[in-house]
Parts: sequence; structure tokens; C-alpha cells
Amino acid sequence: MNIDMIRAAAARLDGHARRTPMLSSPFLDEIAGRRVWIKPECLQRTGSFKFRGAWSALSALDPDVRARGVIAFSSGNHAQGVAHAATLHGVPSVIVMPSDAPALKIENTRALGGEVLLYDRDGQSREEIGKALAEERGLTLIKPYDEPQVIAGQGTTGLEIAAQAAEIGVSEADVLVCCGGGGLTAGIALALNADAPGLRVRPVEPEGFDDVARSLRSGEIERNAATSGNICDAILTPCPGDITFPIIQAHCGPGLAVSEEEAMMAVAQAFLRLKVVAEPGGAVALAAALCRQDALDGADVIVTISGGNVDPTLFQRALDTLT
Amino acid sequence: MNIDMIRAAAARLDGHARRTPMLSSPFLDEIAGRRVWIKPECLQRTGSFKFRGAWSALSALDPDVRARGVIAFSSGNHAQGVAHAATLHGVPSVIVMPSDAPALKIENTRALGGEVLLYDRDGQSREEIGKALAEERGLTLIKPYDEPQVIAGQGTTGLEIAAQAAEIGVSEADVLVCCGGGGLTAGIALALNADAPGLRVRPVEPEGFDDVARSLRSGEIERNAATSGNICDAILTPCPGDITFPIIQAHCGPGLAVSEEEAMMAVAQAFLRLKVVAEPGGAVALAAALCRQDALDGADVIVTISGGNVDPTLFQRALDTLT
Repeated sequence: MNIDMIRAAAARLDGHARRTPMLSSPFLDEIAGRRVWIKPECLQRTGSFKFRGAWSALSALDPDVRARGVIAFSSGNHAQGVAHAATLHGVPSVIVMPSDAPALKIENTRALGGEVLLYDRDGQSREEIGKALAEERGLTLIKPYDEPQVIAGQGTTGLEIAAQAAEIGVSEADVLVCCGGGGLTAGIALALNADAPGLRVRPVEPEGFDDVARSLRSGEIERNAATSGNICDAILTPCPGDITFPIIQAHCGPGLAVSEEEAMMAVAQAFLRLKVVAEPGGAVALAAALCRQDALDGADVIVTISGGNVDPTLFQRALDTLT
Repeated sequence: MNIDMIRAAAARLDGHARRTPMLSSPFLDEIAGRRVWIKPECLQRTGSFKFRGAWSALSALDPDVRARGVIAFSSGNHAQGVAHAATLHGVPSVIVMPSDAPALKIENTRALGGEVLLYDRDGQSREEIGKALAEERGLTLIKPYDEPQVIAGQGTTGLEIAAQAAEIGVSEADVLVCCGGGGLTAGIALALNADAPGLRVRPVEPEGFDDVARSLRSGEIERNAATSGNICDAILTPCPGDITFPIIQAHCGPGLAVSEEEAMMAVAQAFLRLKVVAEPGGAVALAAALCRQDALDGADVIVTISGGNVDPTLFQRALDTLT
């Protein structure tokens, strides 16, 4: 896993993934007490950065292997990223989802060309179902984060941040990254280490699910007590990955954590001041920029909004905080 | 008014206005029955394309004239664009607004550095108030659309559309533009005429306020019966401008009109599929792409979302259509 893999992924993504812009608002600067620069990956294809990693992994496969198709376990953003990237490559994808996943997510994944395989959370092991099917059809598993080509794809976000920060004259800043399993965090950290060493990644997690922050403190992989029960569903993972954690450990500053209320406030501010749709898990980094001033250094802070696939009813609730 | 003015404006805007991306979604393509490419100017500074025209006009002024300050009449997007552009130029701005304007808009305009001058809609003429103050302080009036340097600024959107369409291989398409007084429509039409002559602008208005469409049909400037009473407040103007109309007449195809319900549906789709916040008046072009298939030609359509400054409560209502 190195910077050359990220640069190679960027070449493969060129013309396929979007180069998202860098946004800002004087109103957010005022709240944060410093200049806030936002990288809105909610504007990426399929509504999250996950499309980058999915495209990177798909495009790196040997064409004969790819032609047989891919498989992923996900009920969320990774599912949509893999399904869409596979369809655009003209190959089949199987997405294994729990049968109680939201109807809209199942529907969207199907509409993007994924074959959705539902399993019963209680009675069945998704790994066994997936393994059997993968062997039968010769499908390649695309893991959500602990996979070098996926990390390389997410890292292309970091190459863009480095270039865009240079354009606006920012060479030293904390870069707050919404962190689940750590694919985006590790990828951006590697890219910045190479292209903008004055920019330092800080992982941001939901309070109570801050496995990465705790792992950074203890120096070994720590686990969360649960992987559900928080509004930031997109970034609830059991623990940092075996590949992502050493990268995060080598290159990132201390982690931060925010409450559900702070995440919802950030969703509302992204609506009001940036005109982008963030999901709560995608807004934790913005929440940290706005609510953890004392934990940050410098006159500038860079923030990722990692996704925008939010249920309309939940989004309406976030906007209630404005009225 | 010519293409050279637009190119000069683009040079002045470089590094100050945002180059907004080009978005798309397979879900919108499906609804529209063709490929839909979206230029989201809601992501522009101050939440609408108006910042381009304001910056263009301010930056074109003689420095001594500019230093005395500018004045604008607006309770909406033009107000915020002028106030922010003036502040960034380090010069004062006076924004004349009706005293019954929404509190949030007054507050935002002030926060962006504008001196807000409130007048009583019934008892006072805003033109007289403004004229007296402009003379007393030597302020320059920045008109919202019927002003060449403002049109030149809005036209920079068209230069970007031409370049972005070339990148995605689209050389023939209708370009749907949300149309009030016609500054954005005329500017984009001039830019495309020069840089992408296969792209043809079609103005889109709210039903009942389709002065531009009617003027194009009759060949002379037609007026709306009212300039309020529609949810698309950002684009309710009495009639096309003396400068904008001849440009629109020379370069645009027939106008289109959509209902309030269709505009609200487009706001909801922009949320769901593009992850951007559109205001109803900024979503009429998307509404036309989704609901007026038979009135459009070709395998591709390009759509502007002109602004996103929408009240949270109204936005929540738009999302109700999804649940």
C-alpha cells in the first residue's frame, strides 16, 4: 500500500469519478473561529466517496476475472458504489444485504444494476452465503475498506485535497475525515503525506463508537461495544482494519468524537450554508470543525463530507433544529 | 454586450467564483428518458449564480468609483451576491430591502457585510430612496440583470458548460436555464453561441409568470400580471430586460413553463439523487427536464440549478413528496 497505488488509481478514475469542488462559507468560518474548507464527497457518484474505492478495485482486476463479476456485503454506501461501478464496467455484481435493510436502499442498489441477495440476520451467516456464491460463480469479493485497491481509490480524494489546498494557499491545517473502518482516512493520510505534508489527517467518529481514536491512544486495535444504535449508521464499524490501522497510526493526529446532536446540527449547517445534502455519518467531521475548536490548531481546517445518502424524514428532523 | 466581455469577466472571476462541477444521476436519466447533466450553481458562493454577476460588475468598476461603494435593490439572491462581492473587494455596499423581507435574508445580507436599508413597500419608492442615497454617497447602482457586466458575469457559467459538455462528449443538446429577468439566460446563450453552437438555451419559467416564453412567441416584450404569488420567488420578474431580451431572442429556443408542484418535485429529486439543495425557482429547469420530455430534443439535456437559498420549512415540504 503506497502512494504510487493511489496515483495509479487516480489515473484509472479520471473521467469516471467526479473531482468534487472545495466549498466554504463565511458563516461557517464565523462559527468555527477559523477558515473552514469543505470537500463534499456527497456530490460524488452514488452520493458518497465509496464510488472511488469501488471503481478503483473493479478497474484494477484482470479483465477475465472482472468479467465473472464481483460481490460485496453492505447495506449502505459501499453497496451502491460497487453496484454502480460494476454496471459501468459492464459486469455483474451481487450485493448481500440483510433482509431488514431499508426498502429504499435495496431498491437503489437494484436500480444501479446490483443483484441483491437478502439474508436473515439472525439465522444465516452472510460470509457463508457469500463465500458459497462467490465460489460457484467465480465472483471477486470487494471489501469495504481493508483492501489496498479500495484504500487507493479513497486516497484519490486526498490527492485532490492537496491540489485544491495549494490553489487556495493553505499549506498547514488539520484535515478532518469522517471515519468508519478507516479506508477514506488511511487513503487521504497517505496521499497528503506525499503531496502536502503540512496537512495532517484527524479521524472523526461518533461518540461511543470511537474505536479508531481509542486505538490511536492505546497503540493497538480497540473494538466498539456495538455496531448499531447511532444515527451515524454509515460509519459504525467494529474496529479499524488490519491494513488501515497501521497507516492511520503512522500518519494521523489524535481522533475526535462528536455527539448525535452535533452531527445533526452539522447536517443542518451544510444545508443552510453549503447547499449540500450530508448524512449524519458524513457530517461528523464538519461537526468537529464547528464544535471542537479548542482541539484544533491553526487558522484553517479542511473537512470532508463523506456521504449524503440520508432518509428524507431524518433530514427533515435535522432541519427542525433551524426553525 | 459580446463574448469578449464574458471572457474578460471569466478572467476577473478566476480564483474568486467557484467553477461548479457537472453532476448526473442514472435515476434522473431514467425519469427524463435521456441523459441529464446538471450544472449546480446553488454551490456557487452565496448559494446562487448571482455572485458571478456581482463580482463581474464590481471588479469592472474603476477603483476610485468602486471605493465609494455600491448599491442594489433586492431582497434575494442578488442582495447576497452584491454584499459578499463588495465585502471581498473591501468596499461598502448598501442593499435596499422591503421592511417585510424575511428576517433571515436581512440577517444574512448584513452578515455578508451589506448595510441594509429598509423601506416601507406601501409608502415609499425604493428607487427614490436609493437614488438620493447613491447621489449623497457616490454609490454605483448594480442592477440585477439588465446590465452588461452583470450579464457577462452570469455568462461565465456558459463558458464552463461549454467546456464541461466537451469533456463528456456532448455537442448537441438543449440547455435549460431558470429564467427571471434573463441575465443568466442571456449570458449563457452568448457564451454557448461562441463556444458550443450545438448547445441551445431554452428559458424555463413558472407557469403564470412566463413573460419570456410569451415574449419569444410574440416577438415583443410581454409583461407578467403579477410579480408575487408563486413559490419560485427568485425568478418572478415583471418582464424581460431591454438588454437581455434581444440576446435571448437571437440565440434561444422556445421557452418552457412548469407548475409549482413540478418545481417542488424537482427540489426533492435534487435532494435525493444529486445531494444538492435547490430552491424552487432554481429547480424549474430540472423540473422541465423531468416533466417536459416531449418538448425537448436529443439524447442529452443540460440543466442549470440556479440557486439554493430556500427556507428550511419550505424544503421540508418539498421532501414530504418523497415519503
